[in-house]
Amino acid sequence: MAEVTFIGLGNMGLPMAMNLLKEGHSVTGFDLAEDQVKILTDAGGKSTNNINKTIQTADSVITMLPSGKIVKSVYLGDDGIINNAPENLLLIDSSTIDVETARDVSKEAVNKNLKIVDAPVSGGVGGAQAGTLTFMVGGDKGAFNSAKEFLDIMGGNIIYAGLSGNGQAAKICNNMLLGISMIGTAEAFNLAENLGLDAQTFFDISSTASGQCWSMTSYCPVPGPVPSSPANNDYQPGFSSALMLKDLRLSQEAASMTTSSTPLGANATSIYEEIENLGHENIDFSGVIKLLQNKLK
Amino acid sequence: MAEVTFIGLGNMGLPMAMNLLKEGHSVTGFDLAEDQVKILTDAGGKSTNNINKTIQTADSVITMLPSGKIVKSVYLGDDGIINNAPENLLLIDSSTIDVETARDVSKEAVNKNLKIVDAPVSGGVGGAQAGTLTFMVGGDKGAFNSAKEFLDIMGGNIIYAGLSGNGQAAKICNNMLLGISMIGTAEAFNLAENLGLDAQTFFDISSTASGQCWSMTSYCPVPGPVPSSPANNDYQPGFSSALMLKDLRLSQEAASMTTSSTPLGANATSIYEEIENLGHENIDFSGVIKLLQNKLK
Repeated sequence: MAEVTFIGLGNMGLPMAMNLLKEGHSVTGFDLAEDQVKILTDAGGKSTNNINKTIQTADSVITMLPSGKIVKSVYLGDDGIINNAPENLLLIDSSTIDVETARDVSKEAVNKNLKIVDAPVSGGVGGAQAGTLTFMVGGDKGAFNSAKEFLDIMGGNIIYAGLSGNGQAAKICNNMLLGISMIGTAEAFNLAENLGLDAQTFFDISSTASGQCWSMTSYCPVPGPVPSSPANNDYQPGFSSALMLKDLRLSQEAASMTTSSTPLGANATSIYEEIENLGHENIDFSGVIKLLQNKLK
Repeated sequence: MAEVTFIGLGNMGLPMAMNLLKEGHSVTGFDLAEDQVKILTDAGGKSTNNINKTIQTADSVITMLPSGKIVKSVYLGDDGIINNAPENLLLIDSSTIDVETARDVSKEAVNKNLKIVDAPVSGGVGGAQAGTLTFMVGGDKGAFNSAKEFLDIMGGNIIYAGLSGNGQAAKICNNMLLGISMIGTAEAFNLAENLGLDAQTFFDISSTASGQCWSMTSYCPVPGPVPSSPANNDYQPGFSSALMLKDLRLSQEAASMTTSSTPLGANATSIYEEIENLGHENIDFSGVIKLLQNKLK
């Protein structure tokens, strides 16, 4: 089995690392939060305070970090992984970050003869625990093939998106559309109800018509029509408004970088910013319907 | 078979009337456009220039008209159908109009002991010709049951939405969501491409993920992934931007009437207004991607 160095043992990273451990890999974890590291070591993993030493014997480094800035600080610079890695080390960055940073880091890694993929996920904490995440993977096809052994353990759906950065591009474009369609779905249900059309009837009509979307049929923002949706559980996340806002902001950075017109993406970003400004960023992102109804104070 | 008076023989109304005729009903048509009337009479229908006389022996009146104002002028007032109809006449208004007008007309009709439903359609000219329209029907259940005999001939999917006006409510809420998700889908494909992620790869990922929506999987705004979509035919409608704008404007009237918050609905309306202002309102509504790409001049 392989030696894996896992950096970033948060809500997502920890269960991902645990799944690698369960499969028999030797996992050495790093995180600033000691209680998270302890869960891994209690389960038979190892910990490290010297990443650059640990990676000397590793087959793969997996990172799951909260921002592009932190990804840069971990990978780049004199003390970074790339400048201290043994040749051919496989790097898998599963953080959701901006495309530009992903490509910058990838370029540095390739220059040093390392294999690297950007492999952001969807599926949330539940998917991380169950090992059913979707990975959207960008990078050299050879690096993808090497990474797949590990991704298959942590995920259920491993998709190759093409060149470096394309995993991030796929994720933020998908999630921008998700944010837009969730708000649109919430607007439609709210308007329907205010016009005297109850939610179940509107669902029955629109879910079989041209308004159909994942936000409606898998994650309906009103209680009732889709029993598993967070609307039935007072909008407990799920996928928080804060994480949706993070992805929407990344989409707007990408739009700005490429001078792409995304008027609804920009509008959706400002709507989730309003939820954050009201202090409700921990509500599930489908709770945007409560903002429309003026029920978030 | 029944006597049907059909008012409004436009692109939609004429093929709907023709289908009733083919089924063996006696159809008397009225339209200001004589060439449209002639197609009906050439096929064995009748024409009238005196609606109030014709309806005396009719079992049903069906209207397919372009605006709430015209619907009012046909149904209401001393010379209108409602004040001149024999008792128990069945009125079917398949126009797409505002909810308030639909309810006002319905109230007048019910007061005169007439049966009435609002029954707007989706499915476009193709659906009208093939007799596969979806009807979203509001009104008394008894009136719905009477209307169903005729709607079944003109449509493939007849949905009861509840009380009077609910057919209109269902249609405009669905189409507001459709407009929003089409623009969102177009923004996502455009951004993906500008980031170096090709349309087919983005489609393969997002159509099986949380970005999935009818606008993507049945009516994709870029050529390639969905061969039947208008994008493959230079955005020939289909469903024109002008008709989408009409429905979006109705949604905004309804939002204003009910003080419902529809920020993306409002934004979508202004985006289709921009297409109209540029003189491109006859392009299919999925052609909004060309606006984003600055290719509509």
